[in-house]
Amino acid sequence: MISIDYTNVLNNFLKDDEGLSLQNILNLQEQASNFIDSLSDKDKYHFIYILDNPVDEYFEIANYVRENFKYFVLIGIGGSSLGTEMLAQSLLDYYYNFKGSIRFFILDNIDPDKVKHTLNNIEIDKTLFYVVSKSGKTVETVVNFSIVLEKLKKVKPNSWQNHFIFATENKDNFLNNFGKKHSIKIFYIPETVGGRFSVLTTVGLLPSAVLGIDIKELIEGAKYIRDKFLNVRNILGNPFLLLGSVYFLLDTLKNKNILVMMPYSDKLSSFVSWFQQLWAESLGKERMGQTPVKSLGTLDQHSQFQLYMDGKRDKIITFINILERDTDIPIPENIPEDLSFLKGNSLNQILHKEYIGIKQSLTEKGVPNLSINLDRLNPFNMGKLILTFEIATAFTGYLYGINPFNQPAVEIGKKKVYKLLMKKDYQIYDSKDFLLSF
Amino acid sequence: MISIDYTNVLNNFLKDDEGLSLQNILNLQEQASNFIDSLSDKDKYHFIYILDNPVDEYFEIANYVRENFKYFVLIGIGGSSLGTEMLAQSLLDYYYNFKGSIRFFILDNIDPDKVKHTLNNIEIDKTLFYVVSKSGKTVETVVNFSIVLEKLKKVKPNSWQNHFIFATENKDNFLNNFGKKHSIKIFYIPETVGGRFSVLTTVGLLPSAVLGIDIKELIEGAKYIRDKFLNVRNILGNPFLLLGSVYFLLDTLKNKNILVMMPYSDKLSSFVSWFQQLWAESLGKERMGQTPVKSLGTLDQHSQFQLYMDGKRDKIITFINILERDTDIPIPENIPEDLSFLKGNSLNQILHKEYIGIKQSLTEKGVPNLSINLDRLNPFNMGKLILTFEIATAFTGYLYGINPFNQPAVEIGKKKVYKLLMKKDYQIYDSKDFLLSF
Repeated sequence: MISIDYTNVLNNFLKDDEGLSLQNILNLQEQASNFIDSLSDKDKYHFIYILDNPVDEYFEIANYVRENFKYFVLIGIGGSSLGTEMLAQSLLDYYYNFKGSIRFFILDNIDPDKVKHTLNNIEIDKTLFYVVSKSGKTVETVVNFSIVLEKLKKVKPNSWQNHFIFATENKDNFLNNFGKKHSIKIFYIPETVGGRFSVLTTVGLLPSAVLGIDIKELIEGAKYIRDKFLNVRNILGNPFLLLGSVYFLLDTLKNKNILVMMPYSDKLSSFVSWFQQLWAESLGKERMGQTPVKSLGTLDQHSQFQLYMDGKRDKIITFINILERDTDIPIPENIPEDLSFLKGNSLNQILHKEYIGIKQSLTEKGVPNLSINLDRLNPFNMGKLILTFEIATAFTGYLYGINPFNQPAVEIGKKKVYKLLMKKDYQIYDSKDFLLSF
Repeated sequence: MISIDYTNVLNNFLKDDEGLSLQNILNLQEQASNFIDSLSDKDKYHFIYILDNPVDEYFEIANYVRENFKYFVLIGIGGSSLGTEMLAQSLLDYYYNFKGSIRFFILDNIDPDKVKHTLNNIEIDKTLFYVVSKSGKTVETVVNFSIVLEKLKKVKPNSWQNHFIFATENKDNFLNNFGKKHSIKIFYIPETVGGRFSVLTTVGLLPSAVLGIDIKELIEGAKYIRDKFLNVRNILGNPFLLLGSVYFLLDTLKNKNILVMMPYSDKLSSFVSWFQQLWAESLGKERMGQTPVKSLGTLDQHSQFQLYMDGKRDKIITFINILERDTDIPIPENIPEDLSFLKGNSLNQILHKEYIGIKQSLTEKGVPNLSINLDRLNPFNMGKLILTFEIATAFTGYLYGINPFNQPAVEIGKKKVYKLLMKKDYQIYDSKDFLLSF
């Protein structure tokens, strides 16, 4: 079960009129209803309907990979990596790439330090590389691919093809063409599902299956949200309508241009990175959109909390709690006497109490905050959480009146980068006039 | 060498009057001069003067730890962990805790998943725990300490004391009292240096020495900044005055309440976490202070860039580049034909070109941006960078007219949490009236 506790975004509970009234939320009812109607467009909202696709093939591939390889490396960036990273971190052992029957790494960035050290940590002749790029030509991905290809050809001159699986669009693009030419297994990413909405397609499902994550449960969780709420028009009774409304209203009525996402779980840290892309790339348009900020409880109580409490009133804080954990650690019975105030608690209980203390402090200072409570961190709940936030993001875009599914600015940046890549010379400084060297 | 390129915060280069004029900066000259005068207060600015303390003892301890233990675990959170994490990540192999003569882990949070998995990854009887808490009673730190203590007493009933080194204030507090009682080696953190300014004290220096980081060079880099610029009053000629002025002015004149820090280096990702605490906890006061946001090039080109380009005009972007790296990887000569546009580049050059393309795109859209270029990522430059940002933060606080060295809101939160810890019952929900469960 998941619950959303929105008490502390309401003015009845917050100081200084920094929150919302229930009426503010209810005023969006007509737009919410219209949005619900629009969800029947199966092309536009393909990410919702793709959940019905069969997943059995992923289990076959997963078995093949686990039986034949020792390392599994995802080459991909942004929408091609963040979803898988979220699932691996939230649902596997915290140090999953230290051990396990198959060790998993991600090559996203092209920082030579990281690339070199990652390649030093694997045995390339025992590695399966899953190369993911929707466009089939993402610079970082093809760069890392080309480096790995060169090394593989040296150690496996006749069978390097077997060390790759590709995922891309079925179009005329580098990955698809190269894969077909060399008989590399290719999974196709549906054209109508954008990268940041693609974690529940082959992009995230195949690697999750390889890593032993129960992808059927994951899909079931997402389907639960779809089947239960796709026709629920009541904002206060529908999680994605409620979340979208609250964030939109706090931004537009109360100037909260910063959305802090603060799980009390290290394992949800990559969930926040995934959410950041979803939110920023979908809604950062036409001079609108909140900035999503990654935070972590309790760590950021010792880093960012001063700012949240006493800084500008420009933030909405979203907490995420895990109510029960598979693992919990009790405070030892014979703890040193001076620490006896800790007795009777477990780590999870201390996390809860710290969360409550922090939440109450913020509320008393007039900082709106929202809590999302997961009864357990498991594939079913992750599926629910993912689809809830995906649709909430689409709804927020609907409220802003922008298209949440494109990314025009990214394309501008990419064009500039492509041009520069073909040039020999470049100048790192803009000018020498406004340069201070020391 | 480090250079700060501030061309693109200036209106001559930015669209729509979103930047500053040189005159805006020069108008702060008198305040800058007064701030320079104030720096002679050796108590208030103790973090600058502590650089003269001898460091030889750390080398002795480091040798002892490396000879007698296989694992080194820092127990500490916030200012007790972020600085060390920054130094380890920026100056060691990227996967430093996978291998090496001594393997290093940090226990900061009390998430039971992470604590359990971390303890599973070490052999406790071969581990030295460095327990760091300035107050000597930080909840997370004493909790993790108590769990480790219990386990150690079982496997080393007569010599568990030898597995600990403490760092705390020399006051009546739990860690100091317990350490003295059991003859545990204690290093003292100077009272007048706050946690977030303490990385160049025993807090960060001892673990760095254990990990083989050249702490003399680190200190030399910090001293270079101090000795060269402590009396330089010219804003445009002094890196910490320049940085503080630019951030302060963009916030107060141009409503840039978000400071994005975006290194093009995975190894500087923890530098940003360290900076976030420094900035947020020092300046988030009296309804002032920018929110520091962690970003990473090129990864966030595929996640946050759309928002930076087309979202609200509420951001200043700070890039950090590494001009030359110890490691670089050239694009292979016999790359697939379709990728021939990449030929002649190395990974580092591609990173530079992506940075340039992104910077130019932002500048054309009127998004102010500042670049910090390090010729190399080494201890000397890290020392320079650390002290520059520490003094820049203090100067920015001076401009806001607030005390950058306290954290009153954190203390309020801590009190609330202490009270809750002593209670048996707690209620995770605020009310059932505004709760949506699904």
